[in-house]
Amino acid sequence: MKFQRLGERGSETPALLADDGTVHDLSGLTSDIDGAFLASGGVERVRAAHVAGELPLLAGAAGLRVGAPVARPGKIVCIGLNYRDHAEETGAAVPPRPVVFMKDPGTVVGPYDEVLIPRDSTRTDWEVELGVVIGSRARYLDGPREALACIAGYAVSHDVSEREFQLDFSSQWDLGKSCETFNPLGPWLVTADEIADPQDLRLRLSVNGVERQDGHTGDMIFEIAEIVAYLSRYMVLEPGDVINTGTPAGVALGLPGNPYLRAGDSVELSIDGLGSQRQTFAQA
Amino acid sequence: MKFQRLGERGSETPALLADDGTVHDLSGLTSDIDGAFLASGGVERVRAAHVAGELPLLAGAAGLRVGAPVARPGKIVCIGLNYRDHAEETGAAVPPRPVVFMKDPGTVVGPYDEVLIPRDSTRTDWEVELGVVIGSRARYLDGPREALACIAGYAVSHDVSEREFQLDFSSQWDLGKSCETFNPLGPWLVTADEIADPQDLRLRLSVNGVERQDGHTGDMIFEIAEIVAYLSRYMVLEPGDVINTGTPAGVALGLPGNPYLRAGDSVELSIDGLGSQRQTFAQA
Repeated sequence: MKFQRLGERGSETPALLADDGTVHDLSGLTSDIDGAFLASGGVERVRAAHVAGELPLLAGAAGLRVGAPVARPGKIVCIGLNYRDHAEETGAAVPPRPVVFMKDPGTVVGPYDEVLIPRDSTRTDWEVELGVVIGSRARYLDGPREALACIAGYAVSHDVSEREFQLDFSSQWDLGKSCETFNPLGPWLVTADEIADPQDLRLRLSVNGVERQDGHTGDMIFEIAEIVAYLSRYMVLEPGDVINTGTPAGVALGLPGNPYLRAGDSVELSIDGLGSQRQTFAQA
Repeated sequence: MKFQRLGERGSETPALLADDGTVHDLSGLTSDIDGAFLASGGVERVRAAHVAGELPLLAGAAGLRVGAPVARPGKIVCIGLNYRDHAEETGAAVPPRPVVFMKDPGTVVGPYDEVLIPRDSTRTDWEVELGVVIGSRARYLDGPREALACIAGYAVSHDVSEREFQLDFSSQWDLGKSCETFNPLGPWLVTADEIADPQDLRLRLSVNGVERQDGHTGDMIFEIAEIVAYLSRYMVLEPGDVINTGTPAGVALGLPGNPYLRAGDSVELSIDGLGSQRQTFAQA
């Protein structure tokens, strides 16, 4: 199933995008698509209600803003340098363990929302990523099978990054990852059962119509199940948390001439089965 | 004023610890001590109600568990190597800019709660820190004066750290900072007006009765107002967010023989005017 949150920022209506393209209002079943909904069997409740024909259509859905498909996450955990080609383009060695950092969960915006280039930024960069949404509490998991069972679903995630803030200001990356609006998410939360193999998805990103990233999740150094199991040995993953699983090659940092983003630039991202995003960048 | 949250984890009652030692129930005024309370003038509402004698005593307060004095933060931002003596003991250069990293906000526990040594950990370490609690939204602040106006208050914060996970597993520190229970906070949120000079506070920490840290916030490399103003240029600080402002010398990482924490160890922390914490460490 495909979940959405539609409406003005902060007051989105939870919705189901059905296979026939109709959009159904879930506000009779849940106040939001969030950790509590995911952890309490909300997905199955929606499935049952939809099969029974009990979900009303969401009036005027086509005219509504598309929000991030899950409510503000408790945390966003990111995996760095997780595609061989991206590690190479940045001049980094292929890491022996996942490189784990964090992003302010307040950075999440909708997939078509404006993204702000921070003041004094000259090196704002793009990164298309497969976002993993946690569905149940994960702590000291026993291996990949248990890990997959903790995943609610997947979404396109844009891990916008400011390279000077990230790489030059200190040894730690979080500052350059946590600027306002730096994590467009969505348009859909696609439940895990709809993605036959999360390691068989093509990711693409273009800037002003020029293709910049064309990667494949099969090229990940650490696979999704391995990442979730690994993280659970060091932190507790809670329902609604988001994991950004790394970006393939083709970011401005790695391209000739480093064509970083400028106000007015338009970025489009897509992942097989997860839909597409488009943002216009503006000056903060 | 001193705010507390008392009761079982997840259902704490918001409370005021008055100057005469009496504890008053705030649940008639607010559901929690959180960002919404702080941002909406809650501190002044409590002050007025207390002056008017309208706050009931909290029955049985002395027997209640002490929770963290603010609800789960939206984020925890940490400043690394922010005391000259600690930068020296870890062999790091004094940084030219604040070293900014993040900690899972789910790690916050009460000041007397048990802290878990992660499985497979051999290098769990202590760090007493001055915690800053944000009271109003901070974005592109104009300087230190504006920054101070955004601070709701201060609390003792224990930035527990696993050095192998932090320093050896990758270049990024967050993994070793984000283990379950790794951020005891409290016992009080002391409002900013009660701390005459946050750069004139002594911080102390002992392990099993042996003093290990005895620092002073006057030795910070980047002062608190400077840190808040700096962060606001790169991220949005929201009410209820917590900033851990760094630790002075004396952590196990820097001591001869590296006496890391073991199950059964007892750690006590205190900061002038902010009260004291005590945790027993246990194996996860």
